[in-house]
Amino acid sequence: MSDQRTELEKLGEFGLIDHLTKDFVNQNPSTTFGIGDDAAVISISDDDAKLISTDMLIEGVHFNLMYMPLKHLGYKAVAVNISDICAMNGTAEQITVSIAVSNRFPVEALEELYDGIRTACSIYNVDLIGGDTTSSLSGLSISITVIGSAKKKDITYRSGAKENDLLVATGDLGAAYMGLQILEREKVVYSTNPEIQPDLDGHDYIIERQLKPEARKDIILFLKELELKPTSMIDISDGLASEIMHLCKSSKVGCHVYDEKIPIDAKTSMTALDFNLDPSTCALNGGEDYELLFTVPQSDFEKVKGNPHMSIIGHITNEADGIYFIDKSGSAIELQAQGWNHLND
Amino acid sequence: MSDQRTELEKLGEFGLIDHLTKDFVNQNPSTTFGIGDDAAVISISDDDAKLISTDMLIEGVHFNLMYMPLKHLGYKAVAVNISDICAMNGTAEQITVSIAVSNRFPVEALEELYDGIRTACSIYNVDLIGGDTTSSLSGLSISITVIGSAKKKDITYRSGAKENDLLVATGDLGAAYMGLQILEREKVVYSTNPEIQPDLDGHDYIIERQLKPEARKDIILFLKELELKPTSMIDISDGLASEIMHLCKSSKVGCHVYDEKIPIDAKTSMTALDFNLDPSTCALNGGEDYELLFTVPQSDFEKVKGNPHMSIIGHITNEADGIYFIDKSGSAIELQAQGWNHLND
Repeated sequence: MSDQRTELEKLGEFGLIDHLTKDFVNQNPSTTFGIGDDAAVISISDDDAKLISTDMLIEGVHFNLMYMPLKHLGYKAVAVNISDICAMNGTAEQITVSIAVSNRFPVEALEELYDGIRTACSIYNVDLIGGDTTSSLSGLSISITVIGSAKKKDITYRSGAKENDLLVATGDLGAAYMGLQILEREKVVYSTNPEIQPDLDGHDYIIERQLKPEARKDIILFLKELELKPTSMIDISDGLASEIMHLCKSSKVGCHVYDEKIPIDAKTSMTALDFNLDPSTCALNGGEDYELLFTVPQSDFEKVKGNPHMSIIGHITNEADGIYFIDKSGSAIELQAQGWNHLND
Repeated sequence: MSDQRTELEKLGEFGLIDHLTKDFVNQNPSTTFGIGDDAAVISISDDDAKLISTDMLIEGVHFNLMYMPLKHLGYKAVAVNISDICAMNGTAEQITVSIAVSNRFPVEALEELYDGIRTACSIYNVDLIGGDTTSSLSGLSISITVIGSAKKKDITYRSGAKENDLLVATGDLGAAYMGLQILEREKVVYSTNPEIQPDLDGHDYIIERQLKPEARKDIILFLKELELKPTSMIDISDGLASEIMHLCKSSKVGCHVYDEKIPIDAKTSMTALDFNLDPSTCALNGGEDYELLFTVPQSDFEKVKGNPHMSIIGHITNEADGIYFIDKSGSAIELQAQGWNHLND
């Protein structure tokens, strides 16, 4: 090892993966697509492929057991992995689950966790086919790999968006982030005075969006029924802004996203305003919504427009035109990799 | 959650997995075999299957960075996963790698780790197709999932051993454990006096077996050349005794294993004796050899006997006869799940 020391933060998560894997060369003909999308693609026949995605969740980094019940954690860990298979327009079929756990957890705690995993497996029709249980020096880590199936002709990559395509988001955005704010606030209150009961009244929806997100498997079924194949797709795990950037970068396109078109639930907006936050900012940068973001040709407008689960939030432009957020006053704001900056402050 | 508290140690690793997954029911027709072998089996056509295995390595539990160079760690993490695919008589083709790392590691440390991963991928002809890099509060965790291919007719499970089959071990055993003893000894010396250089002279072989184990992909190729399909197979990761127990339990058979037949390298024996350890005990309970243990019908004796990589160490008996280790004096010792006890102390 050289004596040089470069801090991890300097590269960021995605920069770090790119940097570490840049010299890897694929050698197997079955490897159709490796790193750089929601899932990898392995060819298994002329028409069919397997999709593989993996995710690691670390206590204290991705979840806090003070307000995340273990059963919900198990459910969420499975759902967010299945979401990656949905983002490829595929069907999740199997998972493996590895956990590392310190002996401060009793068997009963792991039973709760696996109860949540089993519930998610049952609802999403996924089989637990393997895994590993090991001890850790501290805390709980969960690593899940999901295996899915797809017809090759149906697979949607991040890279297929074309100029003039419509940009579509499913469901509503920002709720999971606001749910987290409520949970964090009540945690602070509780730490100060454990006698006070947490005040979660009226926040059921946004808290459920944080603690028990769903993968949009239903959308994949809608798309099949509508005979609609998106030109590109990604799941919204890190916030709308970040996913738009990934999709545009992979597709080598620009886009215009309209503030007034972003689907935000009334409860999310009200809670955001209570916290003196702009609801659109929560939707753009909040993360953990696990909705889908996809593009379709303008010719498919009729198929999308009436669907209550889908919102057309913008359109794809030329790469040179850049990636812009058009606020309610009509001002164009350039989206940046880390959040967004005003174009003309 | 109930108020009951059962400590994790009470069930042990394998008991815990069995307990946590007992209520899971497979729902997908493609799931041919789930939990309970070296890898899961997913059907992809009438003739072909994919094999999936996953492993998690935790700093301070599975490796110690004081004597495990990061490049070796990356190599070993890949090799031990590939070993699981070999144990199914399949060919590893892809891996995903997730790492969780604290910011005490600079980018250069992860470059070393990925250098080892890349070397292993290149040597074993495996593609890195995905992964996740995330921060941890402390230490380094690595989770690898490996995907392999096999013809269904070639797949070897742990459950196929038949009475009178020959029990065969590859390579030699106990070396990785003795390599670890040397490294631990020098670590203690170094902690006491950092001026003293570690004394690893003459221990190259056993240290390499600990730091850079190889998956026996070559054995899988030999088996094909010999047109020899084992009736059962498992890789030797936790020590010969433990793997014999797994294989016999899965196959519902007993066996006789002969001390004098266990392949132990002269350097392993000499080091064991230096440490006042019985070399056979090191082979039986040491672990991390990543050799293969398999059974073949007696009719295949001629194919195995001349092979320098294979040692016939015993034979399979009726389940009711039990699992016995025959020591050099001819005494039969019953093997137990946790090591072994003398039958007639």
